[in-house]
Amino acid sequence: MVYLTRVEHFNAAHKLANPNWSKEKNEEVFGLCSNENWHGHNYELLVTIKGKPDPETGFLFDVKKLSTIIKTVIIDKLDHKNLNIDVPFMQGKMCSTENLVVAIWDQLLPHIPMNVQLHCIKLYETQRIFVTYYGE
Amino acid sequence: MVYLTRVEHFNAAHKLANPNWSKEKNEEVFGLCSNENWHGHNYELLVTIKGKPDPETGFLFDVKKLSTIIKTVIIDKLDHKNLNIDVPFMQGKMCSTENLVVAIWDQLLPHIPMNVQLHCIKLYETQRIFVTYYGE
Amino acid sequence: MVYLTRVEHFNAAHKLANPNWSKEKNEEVFGLCSNENWHGHNYELLVTIKGKPDPETGFLFDVKKLSTIIKTVIIDKLDHKNLNIDVPFMQGKMCSTENLVVAIWDQLLPHIPMNVQLHCIKLYETQRIFVTYYGE
Amino acid sequence: MVYLTRVEHFNAAHKLANPNWSKEKNEEVFGLCSNENWHGHNYELLVTIKGKPDPETGFLFDVKKLSTIIKTVIIDKLDHKNLNIDVPFMQGKMCSTENLVVAIWDQLLPHIPMNVQLHCIKLYETQRIFVTYYGE
Amino acid sequence: MVYLTRVEHFNAAHKLANPNWSKEKNEEVFGLCSNENWHGHNYELLVTIKGKPDPETGFLFDVKKLSTIIKTVIIDKLDHKNLNIDVPFMQGKMCSTENLVVAIWDQLLPHIPMNVQLHCIKLYETQRIFVTYYGE
Amino acid sequence: MVYLTRVEHFNAAHKLANPNWSKEKNEEVFGLCSNENWHGHNYELLVTIKGKPDPETGFLFDVKKLSTIIKTVIIDKLDHKNLNIDVPFMQGKMCSTENLVVAIWDQLLPHIPMNVQLHCIKLYETQRIFVTYYGE
Repeated sequence: MVYLTRVEHFNAAHKLANPNWSKEKNEEVFGLCSNENWHGHNYELLVTIKGKPDPETGFLFDVKKLSTIIKTVIIDKLDHKNLNIDVPFMQGKMCSTENLVVAIWDQLLPHIPMNVQLHCIKLYETQRIFVTYYGE
Repeated sequence: MVYLTRVEHFNAAHKLANPNWSKEKNEEVFGLCSNENWHGHNYELLVTIKGKPDPETGFLFDVKKLSTIIKTVIIDKLDHKNLNIDVPFMQGKMCSTENLVVAIWDQLLPHIPMNVQLHCIKLYETQRIFVTYYGE
Repeated sequence: MVYLTRVEHFNAAHKLANPNWSKEKNEEVFGLCSNENWHGHNYELLVTIKGKPDPETGFLFDVKKLSTIIKTVIIDKLDHKNLNIDVPFMQGKMCSTENLVVAIWDQLLPHIPMNVQLHCIKLYETQRIFVTYYGE
Repeated sequence: MVYLTRVEHFNAAHKLANPNWSKEKNEEVFGLCSNENWHGHNYELLVTIKGKPDPETGFLFDVKKLSTIIKTVIIDKLDHKNLNIDVPFMQGKMCSTENLVVAIWDQLLPHIPMNVQLHCIKLYETQRIFVTYYGE
Repeated sequence: MVYLTRVEHFNAAHKLANPNWSKEKNEEVFGLCSNENWHGHNYELLVTIKGKPDPETGFLFDVKKLSTIIKTVIIDKLDHKNLNIDVPFMQGKMCSTENLVVAIWDQLLPHIPMNVQLHCIKLYETQRIFVTYYGE
Repeated sequence: MVYLTRVEHFNAAHKLANPNWSKEKNEEVFGLCSNENWHGHNYELLVTIKGKPDPETGFLFDVKKLSTIIKTVIIDKLDHKNLNIDVPFMQGKMCSTENLVVAIWDQLLPHIPMNVQLHCIKLYETQRIFVTYYGE
């Protein structure tokens, strides 16, 4: 069993504000992150799959194909977008890195080929904050 | 003459769109960057000053004070903001990294103490794109 | 269950020398690290907590509060200090990265809020040497 | 139980091509990586061992000795080499990062001292692709 | 006058060996780098252009177009290639980073649009070795 | 004319305190950096030389020899040392990064071979603070 990780990037706007709360409560809880005019990040996404390498190719899975899957299913939906407005699978959720990483897992899972398993999604919001999810 | 550089960070939303142009022309010229719902970045800012170290301290200038000046004059104005909406000194300008780095120079220059000179502003929009300005 | 990691930094002096050993034996075992006049490092500390995100905030735990806890309990005690002399919780221990990471876990654990769990402490001594501890 | 990681580097040439396949099939499956004139990488290798620190030294294991073992057993065999031609332990295998990381584990394992355990080998082929192996 | 830098990557094989010298002299001068079976690197290329931003776009030059020029003129010629064998503009030259950076400048210069100037090419062979060229 | 840069590292202890000042004044001016028990850093040193590549080797100067010169003249004097106590060429000077970079230039200059010129010394004290010196 080996673990193969591919790193991708996307740049997006978001804000952290609970629509059921007053502006004051959102500012109290989320501080600058609740700015109603949005802020944004360069997100770094690490997708890890696991399984046995194919003896004929030496590959667990072709990393270029993995990159294409991640780009098609995730990056094209998130890159240069507003996470709160533009992303169907984040509708009705708080756009925290925690929720985003779980949503990315759920989106990506059906597209992972049957001979490998999705092991882990790691998402850097900044160089000093990241969230990891193993699907459970 | 030595050159002292301090690195700071800010996270902001922006879009690239000329208000005198149609949505179609903005999309043609700026692509995804013209998304009317904004996108954003983790910007990395490098401020370089130059001059002669003080023999009594060994310092060109106290880097903690330089950091405080940059934070007060620049970071507090840009961090967790929308560059197009929230930043007075970017009003009426395209929010490109090129224009932002020149504007940061203009804002910072009057706050640099007399015994040193502002040498260079470098601004990373992503790990793969950055703009440098020497004030002329 | 998601895992949230916050990265902090501190700069400190230390030496590696067993006070029960001769200078010669310390030099033999620890080499340059036993220099009696000390040396030092820029340490990078990664603290990972785990649990379930709060549906109202999307947060596992407010990362700014986590940063404040780490700074108050750990960074303020270690930053710009001599690990062998200035740090009460390292007294009587060898100041290796291995021992330091276990001591940081022990210090931090009582300050982690009840709704999350401390998962992992990772400590970089240099870019090429780091130690990880999971509390057992 | 603490985990100690040491990072080392090597630069090597390789190609991905199954000798039982036609040039056309290799190009179809491996693309540019099948270039018969080779290409190459700066590989980054992370070796993690685990165990209990020695109370007299504070060390799980002397990281300089660990570095020497990795250099002697692995880096000297791979650095500035052609992985397909020059490396006895890669003969008859596809030179993928997946196969390389397993082979490095197998080579290194007999040289790990008895009081610690080899926990993990991680190998970066580029900054955006890496493979991890835990020995099973 | 602002300076805009774009970072690109390529992976290539090469060797350092003067064809007019004996194998022994090449080994004496170039050491492991003269391995006749090649070795390789992940090269990182920084291209800097300079000029005045366009007031209508805020751009010195569209960085996506700059990236396309670099990819078409340079990366497609070097990525996953053998620098000694596969690259027409390196024929008859020693494949050192010094010569490579000058050759990249010469290749790129005719493709830089007239309203900006090519300022600098920087090429990292490893994280610890890089060469810079300003065209003179 | 090309510019070749080599990166080296050293770990050292230091403090910032003017021996002619009271402890109170040192604390006021230097803050935590004046801790009489020392603190320390992982310093990163970039040495840049310039000149014309040799047509027979393609080298401006053999980077391994440059590394050996830097290690012998600088790193061996600074690594795992106390900059205030152990380093003859820092005696009687404040151990600021500004003074250290000038002293490294002065030490290194006589050892640079005649066919190349020393262009620049850059010294990172932390990832966010660095000083550059061009010899004048």
